[in-house]
Amino acid sequence: MNEVLAFIEKNYDNFLEELKDYIRIPSISALSEHKDDMIKCANFAADKLKAAGMENVRLIETEGNPLVYAEWLHAENKPTILVYGHYDVQPVDPIELWESDPFEPVIKDGKIWARGADDDKGQSFIHIKSIEAFMKTKKELPLNVKVILEGEEEVGSESLTKFLNEENSKEILKCDAILISDTSLYDDDIPTINYGLRGLTFMEIELTGPNRDLHSGSFGGAVANPINELAKLIAKLTDENNKITIPGFYDSVQELTNEEKENFLNLNFSDEKFAKELNVEQLQGEKGFSTLERLWTRPTLDCNGIVGGFTGEGAKTVLPSKASAKISMRLVPNQDPKEIAKLFTDYVESLCPKSMKIKVTEMHGGRAVVVPLNEKAIKAASEAVSKVFGKKTVYTREGGSIPIVVEFMTQLNAPAVLMGMGLETDNIHSPNEHFKVDSFNKGILCSAHFMDIFSKI
Amino acid sequence: MNEVLAFIEKNYDNFLEELKDYIRIPSISALSEHKDDMIKCANFAADKLKAAGMENVRLIETEGNPLVYAEWLHAENKPTILVYGHYDVQPVDPIELWESDPFEPVIKDGKIWARGADDDKGQSFIHIKSIEAFMKTKKELPLNVKVILEGEEEVGSESLTKFLNEENSKEILKCDAILISDTSLYDDDIPTINYGLRGLTFMEIELTGPNRDLHSGSFGGAVANPINELAKLIAKLTDENNKITIPGFYDSVQELTNEEKENFLNLNFSDEKFAKELNVEQLQGEKGFSTLERLWTRPTLDCNGIVGGFTGEGAKTVLPSKASAKISMRLVPNQDPKEIAKLFTDYVESLCPKSMKIKVTEMHGGRAVVVPLNEKAIKAASEAVSKVFGKKTVYTREGGSIPIVVEFMTQLNAPAVLMGMGLETDNIHSPNEHFKVDSFNKGILCSAHFMDIFSKI
Repeated sequence: MNEVLAFIEKNYDNFLEELKDYIRIPSISALSEHKDDMIKCANFAADKLKAAGMENVRLIETEGNPLVYAEWLHAENKPTILVYGHYDVQPVDPIELWESDPFEPVIKDGKIWARGADDDKGQSFIHIKSIEAFMKTKKELPLNVKVILEGEEEVGSESLTKFLNEENSKEILKCDAILISDTSLYDDDIPTINYGLRGLTFMEIELTGPNRDLHSGSFGGAVANPINELAKLIAKLTDENNKITIPGFYDSVQELTNEEKENFLNLNFSDEKFAKELNVEQLQGEKGFSTLERLWTRPTLDCNGIVGGFTGEGAKTVLPSKASAKISMRLVPNQDPKEIAKLFTDYVESLCPKSMKIKVTEMHGGRAVVVPLNEKAIKAASEAVSKVFGKKTVYTREGGSIPIVVEFMTQLNAPAVLMGMGLETDNIHSPNEHFKVDSFNKGILCSAHFMDIFSKI
Repeated sequence: MNEVLAFIEKNYDNFLEELKDYIRIPSISALSEHKDDMIKCANFAADKLKAAGMENVRLIETEGNPLVYAEWLHAENKPTILVYGHYDVQPVDPIELWESDPFEPVIKDGKIWARGADDDKGQSFIHIKSIEAFMKTKKELPLNVKVILEGEEEVGSESLTKFLNEENSKEILKCDAILISDTSLYDDDIPTINYGLRGLTFMEIELTGPNRDLHSGSFGGAVANPINELAKLIAKLTDENNKITIPGFYDSVQELTNEEKENFLNLNFSDEKFAKELNVEQLQGEKGFSTLERLWTRPTLDCNGIVGGFTGEGAKTVLPSKASAKISMRLVPNQDPKEIAKLFTDYVESLCPKSMKIKVTEMHGGRAVVVPLNEKAIKAASEAVSKVFGKKTVYTREGGSIPIVVEFMTQLNAPAVLMGMGLETDNIHSPNEHFKVDSFNKGILCSAHFMDIFSKI
């Protein structure tokens, strides 16, 4: 491995210059005027994969932006990994808050500042460069590698999801582990492996009272008000201990193992620092659980939006006809999103007073996943990052949902290794996105070590 | 009186033609491009008052639209009435829903269709024509009459309120009763006198949780959500009997007299018809009270608007920083709007959890009024409308607030006689406003009878 690692270290600057060129292509998937940039960016990534020594490199056409595929499959009797990443980026609005051009990367304070620097051009480029290091020094990889990059992650991964659901895709992408760098380190010097994501059920409720907006003077007091009733209904969904009251909601929740509990405790999470950073006087969550447990391992119920009546400046004495709320529930293993949607619907319908009509809509959902800590790929990744950072690896979970990860795991029946090198503070969907140059460099070393270690397990 | 009544009946058609000309002036106070129309309309009304035989007719300049004043004060030892009305009208949007030009009145199905036909050109013109009938036939009025018309009723009556608060205005407008036709009949063949209006306290609550919008995946479960908390807070403001829970809220509420209760019962109000017209399966209101009692004599608490988080189409998993609601309370005698605002503020602040910051703002308010049924002016008005309609007069109250009426009563220390001739179904703030020609004609007769009867009491 020494020559591989030496090659990487010698080429840090070159790799960074190449990443800058990758970033300079404004591949914003949300904006149709960047359609040509998407193609250009896919081709750039394909060229880099070819230059790294990958074979059978090609763009896979979709109804949306092309997928980029590459493979190197000459390591007989060795495991196969699938590297996933995305070449599309978030829009840059509000542009006036950027301190430099989002598509002209700047190196400052040891960080690279630009849209996509972290999410996910910087993070996914790591693996292309570790592949190159092996190929340029040893002419081969220690295991079989497939790479798939998509250009629609920031807009819902529709084309990749469709592709994954095609029968022959399972054969094309068949692997023993999926390697993804698109998450964060627990802290910038802490080697981190993420092994769990929450799922989601997203619902919408609309209450209709009278058939038209009424004058609250002429009608108030005798006709139920949809906003007041919606408030009462939402209030009934959680209790004074911040537990969700939907009957059956917790029935299939997988409890934490003692090992996980201990791992979380060892992270020495500071509630005080967390509250201070959000400027809240007090945190609030499900009784009987710590903040990390609440964030990573317990289901939630949050209103994501509510609207009804007059919302402009000033006063208008309307008793509105309708009020509506968007409510999402983060799920944990083994809650089923469809089942939860049904329990939710039944319960809110039962709470609706006779003075109202209710419409409940299921918007979308996805399962939670947890990769067992004793999976070989997790162990290999843990050892790899520990080696590079020189510390014991911590195991984290993530409160959010990455539907494509669940899709990969389900369709390919393989564990995902979330070896993220970002930081929560990297502003990945905001102005002034950045990525530590040191994290980029370490990431390439971690990727190389992982391939080496996983090939030997 | 016979010649006065005969004159009116002979001139029904002429009066209607004059009203049409009044209506043709598009005096929309909300739209600055109609500034010239406001002046034109004020002058039109002044000319009509002069032609009717009123004296000292003049426009009173204000910072907004002019007031129109007129008087006839030669009935020695007789009472003085002040007629109030407004010459401004509501905007006409959405114009495409009108079946005819809003400012080109059409007579159809026994109704005059146009903006202002009822509110308030048609209703206030009644009194100008009854004055004219006296003056043209008897060369005098049976009592002293002052008239004040404003051009800002639909935008908050700011100039008139300011005028009423000037010291010498009290002398100019001094009177024994204020006669107003700007409300509705209980039904189109029922002589009606309205003797009460609810008051209002309008509040706004804003809850702030975290210092920025958060991702509900990464933060949900550990940080209180301002929408959920706002819903809980609003839910706590009323109980399962739809009683308001604010401590002290009902302390000064004046209960109904037995006479009023009986009057209401005799109105044979149909809950079924009311619910059907609003398309609600069930009415809902304070336990222990009838619908009319709830509408006219009991205080309320209604959310007039609520907003927070993502309210567009689709789903966005935001845990918002803020959520806010506009909440108004209709008041009854003898609740004090300022006192209620304070009770409300103290209570919601006490309900706010430590995880949130709360800001409570008092937007505006006004007292409720009830004119005692034994007031001479009420008795005279009751007798007048009963005579014209040929039935026993019913006494109603109104759930809404007309702040200028309260202002008049307070500043002039005189009872208001709400002798409205409109109908709830006249679409006064909607497309296709209309006014029954028969109600217009009857209104002129009622006005004349009232002046005659009140002069003799």
